[in-house]
Amino acid sequence: MGSVDYEYPMGMNFESVHQVEVPPPQPFFRSLKYSLKETFFPDDPLRRFKHQPPSKKLVLALQYFFPIFEWAPQYTFQFFKSDLIAGITIASLAIPQGISYAKLASLPPILGLYSSFIPPLIYAMMGSSRDLAVGTVAVGSLLMGSMLSNEVNPNEDPMLFLHLAFTATLFAGLFQAVLGLLRLGFIVDFLSHATIVGFMGGAATVVILQQLKSILGLERFTHAADIISVMRSVFTQTHQWRWESAVLGFCFIFFLLVTRYFSKKQPRFFWVSAMAPLTSVILGSLLVYFTHAENHGVQVIGELKKGLNPASLTNLVFVSPYMITAVKTGIVVGIIALAEGIAVGRSFAMFKNYHIDGNKEMIAIGTMNIVGSFTSCYLTTGPFSRSAVNYNAGCKTAASNIIMSIAVMLTLLFLTPLFHYTPLVVLSAIIVSAMLGLIDYQAAIHLWKIDKFDFVVCMSAYIGVVFGSVEIGLVIAVALSVLRILLFVARPRTFVLGHIPNSVIYRNVEQYPNAKHVPGILILEIDAPIYFANASYLRERITRWIDEEEDRIKATGETSLQYVIMDMSAVGNIDTSGISMLEEVKKITERRAQQLVLVNPGSEVMKKLNKSQFQNQLGQKWIYLTVEEAVGACNYMLRESKMNPRKGESEDWNNV
Amino acid sequence: MGSVDYEYPMGMNFESVHQVEVPPPQPFFRSLKYSLKETFFPDDPLRRFKHQPPSKKLVLALQYFFPIFEWAPQYTFQFFKSDLIAGITIASLAIPQGISYAKLASLPPILGLYSSFIPPLIYAMMGSSRDLAVGTVAVGSLLMGSMLSNEVNPNEDPMLFLHLAFTATLFAGLFQAVLGLLRLGFIVDFLSHATIVGFMGGAATVVILQQLKSILGLERFTHAADIISVMRSVFTQTHQWRWESAVLGFCFIFFLLVTRYFSKKQPRFFWVSAMAPLTSVILGSLLVYFTHAENHGVQVIGELKKGLNPASLTNLVFVSPYMITAVKTGIVVGIIALAEGIAVGRSFAMFKNYHIDGNKEMIAIGTMNIVGSFTSCYLTTGPFSRSAVNYNAGCKTAASNIIMSIAVMLTLLFLTPLFHYTPLVVLSAIIVSAMLGLIDYQAAIHLWKIDKFDFVVCMSAYIGVVFGSVEIGLVIAVALSVLRILLFVARPRTFVLGHIPNSVIYRNVEQYPNAKHVPGILILEIDAPIYFANASYLRERITRWIDEEEDRIKATGETSLQYVIMDMSAVGNIDTSGISMLEEVKKITERRAQQLVLVNPGSEVMKKLNKSQFQNQLGQKWIYLTVEEAVGACNYMLRESKMNPRKGESEDWNNV
Repeated sequence: MGSVDYEYPMGMNFESVHQVEVPPPQPFFRSLKYSLKETFFPDDPLRRFKHQPPSKKLVLALQYFFPIFEWAPQYTFQFFKSDLIAGITIASLAIPQGISYAKLASLPPILGLYSSFIPPLIYAMMGSSRDLAVGTVAVGSLLMGSMLSNEVNPNEDPMLFLHLAFTATLFAGLFQAVLGLLRLGFIVDFLSHATIVGFMGGAATVVILQQLKSILGLERFTHAADIISVMRSVFTQTHQWRWESAVLGFCFIFFLLVTRYFSKKQPRFFWVSAMAPLTSVILGSLLVYFTHAENHGVQVIGELKKGLNPASLTNLVFVSPYMITAVKTGIVVGIIALAEGIAVGRSFAMFKNYHIDGNKEMIAIGTMNIVGSFTSCYLTTGPFSRSAVNYNAGCKTAASNIIMSIAVMLTLLFLTPLFHYTPLVVLSAIIVSAMLGLIDYQAAIHLWKIDKFDFVVCMSAYIGVVFGSVEIGLVIAVALSVLRILLFVARPRTFVLGHIPNSVIYRNVEQYPNAKHVPGILILEIDAPIYFANASYLRERITRWIDEEEDRIKATGETSLQYVIMDMSAVGNIDTSGISMLEEVKKITERRAQQLVLVNPGSEVMKKLNKSQFQNQLGQKWIYLTVEEAVGACNYMLRESKMNPRKGESEDWNNV
Repeated sequence: MGSVDYEYPMGMNFESVHQVEVPPPQPFFRSLKYSLKETFFPDDPLRRFKHQPPSKKLVLALQYFFPIFEWAPQYTFQFFKSDLIAGITIASLAIPQGISYAKLASLPPILGLYSSFIPPLIYAMMGSSRDLAVGTVAVGSLLMGSMLSNEVNPNEDPMLFLHLAFTATLFAGLFQAVLGLLRLGFIVDFLSHATIVGFMGGAATVVILQQLKSILGLERFTHAADIISVMRSVFTQTHQWRWESAVLGFCFIFFLLVTRYFSKKQPRFFWVSAMAPLTSVILGSLLVYFTHAENHGVQVIGELKKGLNPASLTNLVFVSPYMITAVKTGIVVGIIALAEGIAVGRSFAMFKNYHIDGNKEMIAIGTMNIVGSFTSCYLTTGPFSRSAVNYNAGCKTAASNIIMSIAVMLTLLFLTPLFHYTPLVVLSAIIVSAMLGLIDYQAAIHLWKIDKFDFVVCMSAYIGVVFGSVEIGLVIAVALSVLRILLFVARPRTFVLGHIPNSVIYRNVEQYPNAKHVPGILILEIDAPIYFANASYLRERITRWIDEEEDRIKATGETSLQYVIMDMSAVGNIDTSGISMLEEVKKITERRAQQLVLVNPGSEVMKKLNKSQFQNQLGQKWIYLTVEEAVGACNYMLRESKMNPRKGESEDWNNV
């Protein structure tokens, strides 16, 4: 029953144990205020407003909401030169992409140009990123088109569909701005990196599949987006395939991919790949114009209206069945657009070492969509591909968005007739080559290597999008991610700790195989908050640890188990169910003539143990600050009871 | 820049620092198997099957699913005497309660008796609790009645409503049994204690309000259950109130409450309150029989069919619109019934020091509902009030359920005509007095004292049920509880650690105000796993801690900040987003000429840091096993760089 092979930890003095303290009580409203601040204002945005005169505060507030007032006064001609080049480069990308993505959303192609004119101006004033290039995005366009077409058929009632798109854009903007204003940006964080990789890859696959329609020159095509419907649609009408269209399509895809590969190898020539889409459009249009290929199965864009964005405020639809669809679509596409815009903004800010405020960005992106919905624009955000070109082209400030906007304006005013003969297959080629970049299989491999669960989330999102729909994929991935968090709490890890030789350290014996077991004492560590969701699990699991330890002792004939030490260092919080669990564990150990000992409960836990009287029930002497002090005290008493078995702590136990 | 007032921690030797180990790699399928086992079999139910001959294994399996084979062989006459008394006592409670609760579910009163005959027999064979008394419950009955009457009006089509109730009971049973078989019992854990207190109190309030109909003798009454509809219904027809009925009602409520109060004060006389409902029924019936009060506004039960349960297998409804309602109702009432049954079983098991297996209980309760749905019973579980009477009456085994079942059988065969004149108002009085016990305001006060958030959950459930509906209250409370878990992970606490004088211990300075700050070093502790949901928050928060520390240093003119130590002891896990966050924090600190140091990453975290190469990027020398070793090393280098500023670690920093 002795502990012969165990030495007192060095420096340990049984008299000098440190007290675990209950944190000083705080008034309820002060602690509530503190919690709310930590939840909603972790970055403390009001810090720089402190101790400033009112006029300065006004300027700071203006600069907060309109960062242009911050950078414009320092704007130099050097900056302008860089921004001009970057702006023209992204405009040349924005025009063909805008037209293509509008088709993806089943909207008139001209909307893509409208959406590259007004929103970039708003963002240039309100956005805090220097690299984000604003425009429409493929995934958002596809998602919006497919969700709205569940309610209204875009071919049967194109006007209503268009108005519904403006309404959905308005709600997306409102939702985004409100999230930012209420500082609920963390909702976007629930789209994890793994979810986004899988979701984007899936959406890109779906978008590419949709392009088979124009590339193969098909007239009829399924409205469903999943791979099975599309494949059936493609292979049931093999006799309708037009080789002219297909050849043209693959040539352009090849051209675009080669230029991209070249620019990647030679970053100096970034403009080669940036100009390639516009070059393709021009080449394609010339080809059709001179060969009259539009009469041989190559479909063209046709008439594009000249002139700037018409107002669309009066077109918004606020009547019952449609409005609900618009709100739902707005929320879903709004959050997807935010996730992309903020992630892109953050990555480039990280490269250039400046800071981006997520909530501020949400207000900027939200406002640009609200204003956009009044001026015939649909959903815009900061697409990755365009922002990367912007960055590579050397943009210095958000002014490159203004340059792009002016270029698009000039196009709208004077150049739209030039797109009459642009073949749809070129637009499809542009979409395919952009989408291929979104299928990030390397990131998926990386996820598999590091974190299997993240990989499962990623693949579920991908498979859900490709075989189900964009919404299904998203819901599955978010549900799995949330489930992981809930499972972390519902099934926390518990470990047995052992003593690391020649130290005062106790660590998990699985991770440190040389950590030694202490005779007569079981040391457990719990790795999560003790909440209702895991209280019964922990009770069962702790009981099983004790059972297993007793079985082991029976087999080896060691000192019988007398102390169960629970290291609470990693228990961040506890609720009332958790306290009941501790009370039950205390009863279970008492019934087995064992003493429960707690180590290092944190401030929240200690507060609640104190208020619930558990601290008194257990006795302050059974709560220690470190595992080594607890083990020292237990060993001291084990030795006492061995020398003097009828005295001290062990007295009642022998009578149980 | 020196650290004059800081002494090397005792026993610290810079050469002898302990290595943080990466746990030995495990094959993927082995670790998957381990995780699955920990998730679904935390109590390791197969442990006792190990190393047993096949015949013994069969017996053990039989005993596992039918615990009656475990206790029946040791059954003694002493046990029988106790169980007989307990069984008769609970039967005298079961008969009036059964009839009352069936009315609550808008079902024929006789169903309450049927449901107290077959299900207790099944439970006696399969249940592992010795104290649970099986029967129908008020809240489950109300919930079932209200959910089903959304689909079918029980007054217009009572047959279909009845069949729907059987079908819902079948699905409830299937759902319960499947949860148990798949070992998904933890789903029930998501109904926290706080949720159940609030929900039960709310449901009891609603049930009491419903009784105003019979107590006031009203003929027309609202179908809605919320307090506003009921109050409007009561006060718009004040001229219809019948004083005879009301007087009778209040007399019986008073009688029942007095007997209960008496039994509570004198536990020996438990049978006084247990017999009171049956006494009320007999007194009420005699009164009506002799005064013919049924002709003066006192409604009576009327004809009850003689005979045992008819089969109802062919009555189950599997056609489209109804079946969906039945499935939905079944799942909701099934989970509520489980939560009550298991909580009750566990509390009494805790009193008597035996163990209850939640998953096994689910299979037992599920089977009794499945069989019940074939034999004209509706939803049953283990109600608290009846089980408490069973316990107080001194039951020894589940055999008391068999006794009750036999007593109910005899009643069904011979005594049903006696209930013809039982006034409804007596049943209402029985319900009211039972429900008053469910409004556990003391528990709510306890929650307020210990955990404000649990109190909010509890009150939301209560208000949701009373002002909305039972489903609304439940959804709000569960959503809030889950939100709390998500918020714990999304907004983890971070603390600054300080050195506790005369020790090698570092603790949170908020909890230990005497803990001393170490010059030049910022020590942070993170209290939750680092997941996608908190990665951006933690990045912002850590940056803010560093900012604030630098501001403080600027104000006091201390040693500039050179080391940021992150104590990872409480970080249970990390995902790919979390690793990106660490990489970003590393960049942020490097940019400020500070060194990031990690302390004590757990096994999961260490595995992933290793696989993702972050361990190599940071350098193994910047990962320490304890805070004191990390601080010791940092101080050593701070001193070196002070004595020899152009040498060693600090070289590059001076050039930044």
